[in-house]
This record gives sequence, C-alpha cells and structure tokens, in this order.
Amino acid sequence: MTNTQDPLVIFTPSGKRGRFAVGTPVLTAARQLGVDLDSVCGGRGICSKCQITPAYGDFSKHGVHVALDALSEWNNVEQRYQDKRGLKAGRRLGCQATVQGDVVIDVPPESQVHRQVVRKAASARVIEMDPATRLFYIEVDEPDMHEPTGDLERVARALKAQWDIADITAEFSVLRTLQTVLRKGAWKITVALHKAGDSAPRITAAWPGLHEGGLYGLAIDLGSTTIAAHLTSLETGLVAASSGIMNPQIRFGEDLMSRVSYAMMNPGGDQEMTRAVREALDTLTLDIARDAGIAPSLILETVFVCNPVMHHLLLGIDPVELGQAPFALATSKSLSLSASDLDLTALPASAQIYVLPCIAGHVGADAAAVALSEEPGKSEDLALIVDVGTNAEILLGDKSRVLACSSPTGPAFEGAQISSGQRAAPGAIEAIRIDPVTKEPRFRVIGCEKWSDEDGFWDETAQSGITGICGSGIIEAVAEMRIAGLLDSKGLIGSAEQTGTARSIPEGRTHAYLIHDASAEGGPRITVTQGDIRAIQLAKSALYAGARLLMDERGVDKVDRVVLAGAFGAHISPLHAMVLGMIPDVPLDKVTSAGNAAGTGARIALCNVGARREIERVVREITKVETAIEPKFQEHFVNANAIPHATDPFPELGKITTLPNVSFNTGSGGDGGGRRRRKRG
Amino acid sequence: MTNTQDPLVIFTPSGKRGRFAVGTPVLTAARQLGVDLDSVCGGRGICSKCQITPAYGDFSKHGVHVALDALSEWNNVEQRYQDKRGLKAGRRLGCQATVQGDVVIDVPPESQVHRQVVRKAASARVIEMDPATRLFYIEVDEPDMHEPTGDLERVARALKAQWDIADITAEFSVLRTLQTVLRKGAWKITVALHKAGDSAPRITAAWPGLHEGGLYGLAIDLGSTTIAAHLTSLETGLVAASSGIMNPQIRFGEDLMSRVSYAMMNPGGDQEMTRAVREALDTLTLDIARDAGIAPSLILETVFVCNPVMHHLLLGIDPVELGQAPFALATSKSLSLSASDLDLTALPASAQIYVLPCIAGHVGADAAAVALSEEPGKSEDLALIVDVGTNAEILLGDKSRVLACSSPTGPAFEGAQISSGQRAAPGAIEAIRIDPVTKEPRFRVIGCEKWSDEDGFWDETAQSGITGICGSGIIEAVAEMRIAGLLDSKGLIGSAEQTGTARSIPEGRTHAYLIHDASAEGGPRITVTQGDIRAIQLAKSALYAGARLLMDERGVDKVDRVVLAGAFGAHISPLHAMVLGMIPDVPLDKVTSAGNAAGTGARIALCNVGARREIERVVREITKVETAIEPKFQEHFVNANAIPHATDPFPELGKITTLPNVSFNTGSGGDGGGRRRRKRG
Repeated sequence: MTNTQDPLVIFTPSGKRGRFAVGTPVLTAARQLGVDLDSVCGGRGICSKCQITPAYGDFSKHGVHVALDALSEWNNVEQRYQDKRGLKAGRRLGCQATVQGDVVIDVPPESQVHRQVVRKAASARVIEMDPATRLFYIEVDEPDMHEPTGDLERVARALKAQWDIADITAEFSVLRTLQTVLRKGAWKITVALHKAGDSAPRITAAWPGLHEGGLYGLAIDLGSTTIAAHLTSLETGLVAASSGIMNPQIRFGEDLMSRVSYAMMNPGGDQEMTRAVREALDTLTLDIARDAGIAPSLILETVFVCNPVMHHLLLGIDPVELGQAPFALATSKSLSLSASDLDLTALPASAQIYVLPCIAGHVGADAAAVALSEEPGKSEDLALIVDVGTNAEILLGDKSRVLACSSPTGPAFEGAQISSGQRAAPGAIEAIRIDPVTKEPRFRVIGCEKWSDEDGFWDETAQSGITGICGSGIIEAVAEMRIAGLLDSKGLIGSAEQTGTARSIPEGRTHAYLIHDASAEGGPRITVTQGDIRAIQLAKSALYAGARLLMDERGVDKVDRVVLAGAFGAHISPLHAMVLGMIPDVPLDKVTSAGNAAGTGARIALCNVGARREIERVVREITKVETAIEPKFQEHFVNANAIPHATDPFPELGKITTLPNVSFNTGSGGDGGGRRRRKRG
Repeated sequence: MTNTQDPLVIFTPSGKRGRFAVGTPVLTAARQLGVDLDSVCGGRGICSKCQITPAYGDFSKHGVHVALDALSEWNNVEQRYQDKRGLKAGRRLGCQATVQGDVVIDVPPESQVHRQVVRKAASARVIEMDPATRLFYIEVDEPDMHEPTGDLERVARALKAQWDIADITAEFSVLRTLQTVLRKGAWKITVALHKAGDSAPRITAAWPGLHEGGLYGLAIDLGSTTIAAHLTSLETGLVAASSGIMNPQIRFGEDLMSRVSYAMMNPGGDQEMTRAVREALDTLTLDIARDAGIAPSLILETVFVCNPVMHHLLLGIDPVELGQAPFALATSKSLSLSASDLDLTALPASAQIYVLPCIAGHVGADAAAVALSEEPGKSEDLALIVDVGTNAEILLGDKSRVLACSSPTGPAFEGAQISSGQRAAPGAIEAIRIDPVTKEPRFRVIGCEKWSDEDGFWDETAQSGITGICGSGIIEAVAEMRIAGLLDSKGLIGSAEQTGTARSIPEGRTHAYLIHDASAEGGPRITVTQGDIRAIQLAKSALYAGARLLMDERGVDKVDRVVLAGAFGAHISPLHAMVLGMIPDVPLDKVTSAGNAAGTGARIALCNVGARREIERVVREITKVETAIEPKFQEHFVNANAIPHATDPFPELGKITTLPNVSFNTGSGGDGGGRRRRKRG
C-alpha cells in the first residue's frame, strides 16, 4: 500500500490519501484509509451506496495530475445499475471502479455513513449520523449435513467474515422468521443490526436479498398533553414525516398531579393510563408511517423523551411515588428495551426502544433531551435554559458545570385556570398589544395571520370566532397591561378612573380589563381579571425563583443568555417574558427560542448512538437542585411576585421604548402538528 | 489476619485455616478464607443460613486444643432465632459467634452454598449446587431529595456495597414492582439475582424483608409424547415435586414427522402446535407448584431439553426445515430467554429460561442433556449411549473424542405399528418369557407386579384386562421367540410343525405366535405377527446401524460398555436388547440403564450454571455424524437385519444360559408420572 511506484489516491473532503496497487477498488482504498464511504452490500455492486465522483485534471494543491484513465473503465455492473436506477453524471460505484493511476476522489455527502444532517430549526446544530441500527448485506453459507450448524450460526459467521462483526445475537422474534428469509433470499440477505453500549450486536430485522426499502426511527416527545413524533430515515437522517396527537390520558387528569392522584385513588388506574398512552402510540405510529408511505415494520428504533410521570406511565410503573416527597423515581437511568416489552404492537416486536435518563424525580428525560440538544455543558457563556410547561424545567450552566431544577409553575402559562383561558386552538388570542395612550387592545388569534386592526381580520375569524386567550396570549396581555399602565407593580388592575379607560371594568371588589366583548351577539366576553393576574404572578414567580435558585447555587446574580425551550417557549415573546419577570434580565438579543428542544434531543439520540452515552454521562454530572426543600426558593418566590418594569400607576418603560410587532413563530402551517404540539407539559 | 498471636480458625470439611483477630465473626473468617458458608442476609443474623458447628477438645491432627470459650457466648440474636425456629443442638450462627481462641468449625452440608446433591438414580452422579439464580438480602438507602437517584440505582448501590456485585440490571417486570416492594420492606428487601455467562447480573424477583419462601426451578424434559418436569429447590437442590403430562401436540401427529407435515400442510399449523405445547406447560407448571405447595411466582429458573422439532415448536419456529434435508436448525446454540418471550403465563414474566444447545438437526438438546448427564467425554473406557425413542440418539465416546448421530428407528419400539401394540398403560404386556421347551409364554402387565403364572395375577388384572403389548414387551417377545426357537435368524416365524407348538398359528401366508387369547370372552387375541417381527427388525437395524456408523468413524469394532438412556431405555432388558441385536455385544454387566438421562441433564443445568457452559463447549466439540448421507449406514442397516444370537430353528444360546427374572424399574408408584413419562420421544 505504500509502494512509491503505486498510484496516489486522494479522497475529498477528508483529504485522506495513500498509495494503492493498480487494480485496487476505490471502496477498498477508502476502507483502508478510514475514509467514510458507505456500503451496505460489502462491495458487491448491488447497493450503490458507495457512489464516488472522480475529479480529473491538475490538482496543484495535491500535486497530482489526474488522467482520464485514472480509474478503470465503466463496467457492466455500473451499466446495469445505470440502466435500472440511473447514476448522477460523473458518478462511479466505488466498489467497481479500480485505481489505475493517481486520482482525486470526492465522496459526496449521501455516500458518507456519518453524514451530517442540518436541522431546520434556528440554531444551526448539525447531527452526525451514527444510528444504533444499520443495514448489512451478507451472503450466508448454505446448511451442510456434513457440518451441521444452525442458520443463525451461519449468519453470525457471515457477519464476522464479511463485516468483521463478532458475537452477534438475534432478537427472538427475528430468529423465528430467519429461516424463511434466508431461503427466500437464496442465502443472500440484509440484516438490520442494533449495536449500542457494551451489549452484543443484535439482529432486529432480516430481509431477503438486498433491502432497499429504507430503515426508519421514531423520535417521540411524550408530553402530558400532546405526543409528537418525527419519523426519521436512519440512513439519511431526514425527517420523513412528523405527526402529533393528543395524549389520551387527559381524560384521567389535565395535569400530571391529577393523573398521579387518579392512580392513587383508583386501583389499577395507573395501568389504565398506561394502556391508554400505549394505544395512542400505536395509533400515532400507524398514522405517521402511512403519512410517509412506509411499512411500520421498517421502524426499528424509537427514542422517547418525557417527564418523569409520563416516563413511569409509559413503562407501566405506578407513578404514585412521584406525587409525594421525596419524589423517588423507580429508575433514573436510561432504558434500552424492545417494543414487545412495552406492548407497542404497531412497531415490530424487535424494534429497539431507548428512553433517555431522567435527571431527578421532577426533572425528566425531556429535560435531559433539552440538555442534549442545547448543550449547556459546552457553552462558553452562562446559559439559562427554560422549558416552560405545567412544570418548568430549568438548566443553568456553561463548560464548567450544569445545574438543573424543576419549578411548579402550574398550568396558568398554558391558559388553564385563567378566566378566559383556553387551549391553543383556532379562535384563541395568542398575541396582544395595548396602546399605551388609548389603552385600546389589538390582537391576533390562532388561525388568522392578521391583527385585529387589519383589514379582513373579522371576516377571516368569523368562523372560529374569538373564543378565549391561550398561554402566550395571557403572558402578553399581562405584560402589555403593565406597560400600558393598567397594572401597578404589585399586580393590581387600576379602576377606570385610575387608568383613564372604560375597559377597566369592576369585577367584584377588584377590576378587570376588557379585551373583547361579543356578548351582544351571544359570544364571550374576554377579560383579564385580577384573579388571572394573580395566577400568572404565581406561575412567573415560581419560574423566576427556580432560575434564581440555580443562580445562587452557581454563585452568580446574572446570566449571559436565556434560551426558551419547549413548543410553548417558541411562542412566548422574549420581550414580554422579561417585562413580566419570568426570566432574569438579559439584553433582548440574548434571548433565543430553541423550539421543541426536547424533541430535537430525541432526534439526536435517535440518529447518533454516541449521543446516548453522552447524555447519560452529562446527566450523571448535572447538579440536581430540589426546589421543594430549598428554603431560598420560597424567599425568591415571594420576592419575584412584583412586576418590576414600571412604576405605579403609569408605565416607566425604561430601556423598553418601542414594542416591535414581532411574533415568534406564531405562523401556522409548515410545522406538522406544531400547533397542536404547543402544549407539551 | 496472619498475626501469629491471633487465634487459629480451622474449617472442616474443607480444611481451610487462618488466623483471625479475637472478635472476628466466624462468617467473616469463612469468607476471607473462601470457605463455602452460605448467607442470604449478609451476616445480619436473620437468615440463619450460616449455621456452623464448633468442635471442642483436642485435635491432634490439626495441632490445636479448642477450649469451651473458643467462640463468643451464645447471644440474643441466636436466642431469638432459637425461640422462633429452633437450632439443631450444637449449632451456632456463623455471623453472630465470634472467634475468641483456636477453634475447629464444621460447616454442615445444608450451610454450604455449593452443597452436593446426590441423585436418587442408579449412577451416583452428584450435582454441585451453583444455580444461576440466588437470593441476596440487602438494606437499601432511602431516597434523598438532596441527592436524587432512582430506587433501582440505590438497589444497585446496596448490592455493590453489601455483596460486591456490580453493574446489575433488573428484568423489566421487576422494575415495575420494585418501588412497592422497597416500601413494604421498609428499604430491606431480598432480591433474586440471575447471573449466567457474560451478561449483567439481573434482578428477577424482589420481596420485602428477608424472603424465606424458597426459590425454585423447573427442569423440563419436553418429549414428543410426554412432558416431564421436576420442580427443584434452587437452595437445597432437592426435588420438591415431579409431574408429567401428555404432550397435547399428539393430536397433530403421533410422531415428529407427522407434526412437521402438519405444519407444512396447514398454514399456521406450527403456531397452533406452539400454542398447544405452551398451554400444556402452563398447566404443568400450575400442577407441579400445587403439588409442592408453593406459589408459581417462586419458580425463577426453567431449563428445557427436547428434540429439535419440539425445540422449534416450543420456541415458535416453524419446524418445516427439520423435515427435509439438510435438516437445518434455526439455531443450534443454547438460548437464554425469559418466560415472557415464550408467553409462559404460569411462570413469572421475569423467570429465566435456558434451552440446552442442539447437537445437529436430528440430534437435539435432549441428546445434549444426555451427554451432560452421562459425560461420555470424561469416560475412561469407550461408552455407547443410546437414548431410545421414535428416533434413537446415539453417543459414542471417551476422554479423547465424542461422536453423535440420530437414527430413524421409527415408533415400533414404542409399541406403535405393532399389530397388538399399545402405549405403556395398565393392561399392556411389558415383560414376557417363553419356555424354550414348552414354548409357553408367561408375562407381566403394567399395573400388576406379578407374573401371569403367579397366584393372584388374574384377579389383579381382571379390571384392566390384558389389552396389548407395549414397547419393552414387544422387544422381549421377539427376543424370547428367537431364544425359544420360534423364529429363525432371518426373522421368520416357524409353523406349528416347525416349532412344535400350537401357539404358532397361520396368519395369511406367514405365521404368528399367540401370546394370549381372550376372544372367547370378547377380549383381544394378542399375537406377534410376521409383520411385527419385520417392524422390530427395521427398528433395531436402524439403531444398530447408527451405533456401527459411529464405531466406524471412531475406527473401532467394539465398545467397552453400553448405556441405555431414556425413560423407555430404563424398561428395556439389556439381555433381550442384545439377543435382538439392538446394541453391539458387550458383557451383560457392562450394560447399564441411565434412566431418564435427558431429564437428569436438565436438572444438572438447572442446579449448576457452570454445567451450561460445559455442555455448550462439549456440544461444539462433538463430532456430528449424519446417518442420512453416510452410504455405510445403509450397508450396516441391511447387515443388521438378522437376529444372530441363535441358529435356526433351535436356540444356540451361547453365553446366554440363564434368563434371570429381572425387570428394570418396571415397578409402578414412587416415580411421579414415571409410567406416563415412559414414551419420551
């Protein structure tokens, strides 16, 4: 290989190079140099995964001239593939083309095993493809009566000889069909091999001949309210379909604690909830496979992220311990299971399940997934990451140390326990602005892109009507009321006399702010009451106090940046969040939305098996802070009750001078299920 | 520990000795010396497994004098145990009694973890107890909000700290109940830990507090006709109950090949048979647990031995490949599964299943179990081991090498395809003698200890009647006919003129021998026909040819000894087997019966995890001989057709001069299900 007379082979983009004897297949050269060139069939010219592009001419950078005959001539195998499927211009099959002279060979991204997938979301995080399950084509010895061995043992021999993979085992359900597959494929088969951690490589599927139907995985964000799934190709890393459905456990309780109560009060109630969520997962699996036009049998990996209560209910573990101190998890470690363990019948029984580790009894695998996606432990500056839901999970950290806690914000941020509150659904007010002079509101509702003072708004919303206020709407409403001087720093709504607007209406012994009144037409009267303000104050105080507690632990009194995570976080206006005092003050451009970071973490763990070991390590090293037992939490909570950005009764806007008409990803469409996914708890 | 001033502690029977500081508990001393002293509670004085007996006085052999105060005084813990349960005289608890002076301490067998269990059967093989699953009592840290960890992680920590067992995992079904058990036991629990091979130790059960209900395993010999099980204590190695039931697959075909045909002809037929056998196993499990008075939840290990077709049908693998050359097994390796994999619902889902490896497509895990039990590979002389059933499995070997084959004897040896043949059941003739002078028969039937010429026989058999001939009966009948001169060496039955007895009756163009005629009373007429002789000749030729083939491969023309294995083998008279030419000639005292050697192999693998690795290694090294493709098999088969031990037409008894009235374990009773178990295929 290092004979100086031999042709020089240079691979791009890796830059790896070496000399190889004339006649060496390009795939062989790539393998010897450790160049990342894919192959499922092992160089037999049938899978076409090893496509490469030779470059010709002078490459002064590399000091070589590539002649037109630097590779062997186009051969029959390549022609056959070209006729059947077509090859892009300039492409050759790496296993067929052999080295004849000095040559520069480019490996296009789609021929790389460990190709990088750029996420669509704002942060340009890339995922390097290295899934736990991969395909291998093998040619298996036929059985021989002179030397009797089982079919599985000959498959193992082939994997050792042809791929150097030793000590394999097979999922029991695959063993049961292996003989048929081997004979159908005339002893040539493709196996899906799962390899993670120290466990033996495990065959989780087998197909006759070369399997070209693809290989898929599901990344599932199992929320209290919504279950969201991304069906992802484990070969390309691309999302084939996304889908979300309501968590049917809602009928047992809107929030987590009511579900825990349900389990406590009703014998067998936990199992009832487990059955319900598993059935929903089966439905979701079938739906998403149908959307993508693939057979569910091709889904061989599934990753779950979820809060601790959903974690236990998914696994069939009674969540009762999570409802009371000391909030002990049955297990906090990651779990590797198969679909049959969870009775997920829509998946093949051999499909491998990975559940991310939980951080603590209140800080679940969803928070771990946020840590995997946002990587606070790799941050140069100190980042505060907040995943807002019924509970807020809070991470604070940088390269030196990461801390985590959970804070009981309650459901107010999701529009629950708010007088005019409702779920995020068409007709719900999701954004609002109040003119500081006239105190008149204008707003936008889900299902319509226009603001209420724009032409056509009322026509376009005629069908849905204006039905209530959702989570992001109530946050903006309270912040805007404060900015417009309708509210003092203690959170008291002024009377019409105090505020100078008739929209301040009496409500018992307090006042309310009237946003929209359709009562004349039999519609709702949408107000923000004093009770609503109190609910939001409690929620935001809890959130802020959690963040402060972590900051205390870390010994800092400010953070460098804030990341709002969670599907709901994506809809919160950072400006209003800061006005409200939900998050510590940072420059506005240091507040970013990470979108559904938990879901992204699930996708990362799905596509890259190393990320699983990574997050398991990170979770072990995270400093867990339990808000329930820290006396300072209560102190911070009380101190955070005020709404500080202005003084009573007129706004003192300070640095906040203009209110840009921004909305954060509130546009509908293009985000499959995003609207419904909003309320991940 | 080696301070020469310290007291000397000597353990018997091991002879291990060492010096220990005054105050060292005997259990601690035993552990440090590697003395085999049991303890489940880890020295907390609650399990009483570490009972020892100190000896006092002069021990010149050991050079010590043991004073009466060589151990600490009887303490409260011991008194409490004594009051509650009682201790044998002279016994102390090893964890309570501490060393005070030179002492000799005997560890009684029941206090040894690796105690030896002597099998009841003829061969005095002992089993050293070392089961894959053992009990460990642990005290687990309570959850702490300051340092949140999952319950399982704290259980793992306790096992590491208290038993030095690292990296444990839990069966998923146990994880689901772990929290309840921990709290019921106030953080003191007993776990059953399964450890086999390289896999991580796995918790397969957990009980609150110290579990004293025992731990059990099932050794199951899954035959084509009968399923036999021994419920064995995994603590003592003693059999708690034995039971057997018919294999319900019989309704799909009496012999294995008809079941394979059923699977081939009926779509889903294999699954139908799998369901049937699993349901029968559930019934058997419940029955045997009830017989022993234990909860089925205590059965945490099950070992299966079976022929290849039953192996596949148990596992839910279509056996069709086993019905045709090249007889490829889906897998020949041993299998480690859990009860849930096989849908065995009577066992706890976490119960561990071990299926012995198969030797080849015709030579199953039952033959491997025979090899484990009879250990031909450790034999000084050359042993031929024959497990007779519908197929005969044959092993030939000594220390240098072991060979194995299977021979298609057909069901004649089991009484099938014989004119008066029947299953072994009350009323069946199981033994017969023919007077060489008068040619008159006398016989014994199942269900009666007396011979037909003894007083009371007819009274005692009046109820069952004389209904037919079972397998051992037909072998004796043919051999006796040959000895009595009723049959020539080619196997032709003589006429009344030739034989001088009216019991030679015409039957078409041939003759039959009349054993018993109850036709006058409407009963059967029991004869041995020329067709019966032919069927037995075919069967015995096949068996003999298989043995000869192995002898050829080994390059020998005689063997040193013969072992008849199989429940059926236990009923065959060695003398008659040799007269018939079923087995090669050896001195009569070199023919032994191993009883149900396959079942014994299963029990060994159940009680000793090392035996599993041992048989896996042995099976890999066995030379497999496939009778179907060896031309010499056919040759031997044809040559073996004759019945050589006498010359036509009168017996030439040679060395066989007396016919002892022996019977081989034909006594009924005391062998739970033994009668029914007879026909293991």
